[in-house]
Amino acid sequence: MNPVLVNRWRGNAIESRHRGAVAVTDAEGRLVLSLGDVRQGIFPRSAIKFLQAIPFVESGAIARFGLDERHVALACASHNGEPIHAGLASDWLERVGLDQDDLECGAELPMHKATQFELLGEGRGPQRVHHNCSGKHLGMLSSCLVREEPTRDYRRYGHPAQRRWFDVLESVGRARVMQLPWGYDGCAIPTLAIPLQRLALMMARFGEPARFEGARRGAVEAIHSAVATNPYLVAGKERLCTALMERLASRLLVKVGAEGVYAASATEHGLGIVLKIDDGSDVAARVALGAVLATLGLIDAEDQRALGEYFSPELTNSRGDAIGRSEPSSTWSSVEGTEEG
Amino acid sequence: MNPVLVNRWRGNAIESRHRGAVAVTDAEGRLVLSLGDVRQGIFPRSAIKFLQAIPFVESGAIARFGLDERHVALACASHNGEPIHAGLASDWLERVGLDQDDLECGAELPMHKATQFELLGEGRGPQRVHHNCSGKHLGMLSSCLVREEPTRDYRRYGHPAQRRWFDVLESVGRARVMQLPWGYDGCAIPTLAIPLQRLALMMARFGEPARFEGARRGAVEAIHSAVATNPYLVAGKERLCTALMERLASRLLVKVGAEGVYAASATEHGLGIVLKIDDGSDVAARVALGAVLATLGLIDAEDQRALGEYFSPELTNSRGDAIGRSEPSSTWSSVEGTEEG
Repeated sequence: MNPVLVNRWRGNAIESRHRGAVAVTDAEGRLVLSLGDVRQGIFPRSAIKFLQAIPFVESGAIARFGLDERHVALACASHNGEPIHAGLASDWLERVGLDQDDLECGAELPMHKATQFELLGEGRGPQRVHHNCSGKHLGMLSSCLVREEPTRDYRRYGHPAQRRWFDVLESVGRARVMQLPWGYDGCAIPTLAIPLQRLALMMARFGEPARFEGARRGAVEAIHSAVATNPYLVAGKERLCTALMERLASRLLVKVGAEGVYAASATEHGLGIVLKIDDGSDVAARVALGAVLATLGLIDAEDQRALGEYFSPELTNSRGDAIGRSEPSSTWSSVEGTEEG
Repeated sequence: MNPVLVNRWRGNAIESRHRGAVAVTDAEGRLVLSLGDVRQGIFPRSAIKFLQAIPFVESGAIARFGLDERHVALACASHNGEPIHAGLASDWLERVGLDQDDLECGAELPMHKATQFELLGEGRGPQRVHHNCSGKHLGMLSSCLVREEPTRDYRRYGHPAQRRWFDVLESVGRARVMQLPWGYDGCAIPTLAIPLQRLALMMARFGEPARFEGARRGAVEAIHSAVATNPYLVAGKERLCTALMERLASRLLVKVGAEGVYAASATEHGLGIVLKIDDGSDVAARVALGAVLATLGLIDAEDQRALGEYFSPELTNSRGDAIGRSEPSSTWSSVEGTEEG
């Protein structure tokens, strides 16, 4: 039974409660912080994108198509679909000689509400480049092109474009990924149900490029650099991943996943951090991530204040009055992080 | 610890889980079905609107302002903000001689997505009549006008417009409501944290107008009739409350509340039904309501099929492919309803 991690207060009572599990491990998979069932399989969804981008960077597509680190950041993104994101996706399609129909992620309105409303106000509708995963899909397509593989159906479980990142997980995480339960993700590629602690180990290892050799090492370094120097491309306006990486730069590489997931590498401490809210709440996942980072000493009181809209978000009514707040539960007061991490 | 009521399946694994509590009682508060902690206080939010409408109907505002049962249904609504809803709210404002600024619910875009997008496409923005609670606010305003009370700040905890429905709860539910924890709702009026079982008793009693006398009896009968004959006004397109009442008419008077709540009166069985999803998921609340109604024998297999989009909704990816489903958990297989209710 996973503990309550986050409470949503309304007035002087708790309105809703969010349970979940947290695993923080070192690169050997040793638990530094553990809450709830860390052996449960969770769908990381987009939280695994840094690892999924490795085969793209290793493929040589960057040199072949004249791409740069902005494209690498977009391959790791769950982006807002703002003009800067959709524009870069369109630019990338042009560079590789494909068009939107080749993206198999489906068309969506931009995730960012104001951008969405602006688009609708102009009488425009959903497009594939707006999909928050369009960069990941472009990365997969690009590596197919370099390898001269047919790109059609690259989204399927059995396609080499997917098998390549399965292999990365096998190798980085010493995981038997072909035995994992799986399903299709919102963007139509597979997502695997990975045990929480195992995924934390993968994130810890990803955080230390020096563990890898040759092309793999170069790819991991390139992703670190791309993400840390382009955090806006990884998410965008009013997004926690961007706000956190703008503050902490390469010290914390962090990625959200749908249905209440975060995965991060605390690079200086050699830690992998993964959390899943049982019920899939994204608001609760942000609050829980703040509590984990504070417990581990990876953020200070000033960071917590600056990121308060994510870590203890106010509840407002339709008039804009503050009427409550989501907060870490009392569970956290009894949690101790390991000092040296 | 409340049990898991609903699972969200993706592929061959559970992605997210929703816990919650259910209380079904007769009009004496005796439990006919009970899951989880039925003594916990929950914020019913909009699920309590049938009871909140009683003081409005009792006030004589209907005759005074030439209103009819459509306005009564709108007073009970969490409506979509479709033209039929917003138009009726505007009509009501005119009849009572007020304008939108007198509504203290704040401006919102229509809840119904397609309506919202259409509005944005026309370059229009949020309005107070679009707010899903605008009818409830109009009911409160109307009863203030009949009583010649100042309407300003009618939304506040201490205003007679609020005290009147507190009194209804005291009387219908034999509850000491002034001692309950409370907070402000999204629409800016108070919401009280009512124990689940107590709220079920109130809904059971509301379901039997013959229990009441005089004006109260007339008001409860008027609300039954208004809601059962105008279910579209109570919610709207693609909404479970409307779809259920269109099928079951006055046999089931049902109302959704934000953050995973349903309250209903099974009028022929003399039962009150209340459920709350711990984490506030609206999708899970719909699935759990289907499971409760099936367990109680209030809906049959054909109803379940017809309302499948609410009771076991498919998960689709951005291409429209089916990739999972939300379903009642195994908890329900061990739950038995009382045959005769």
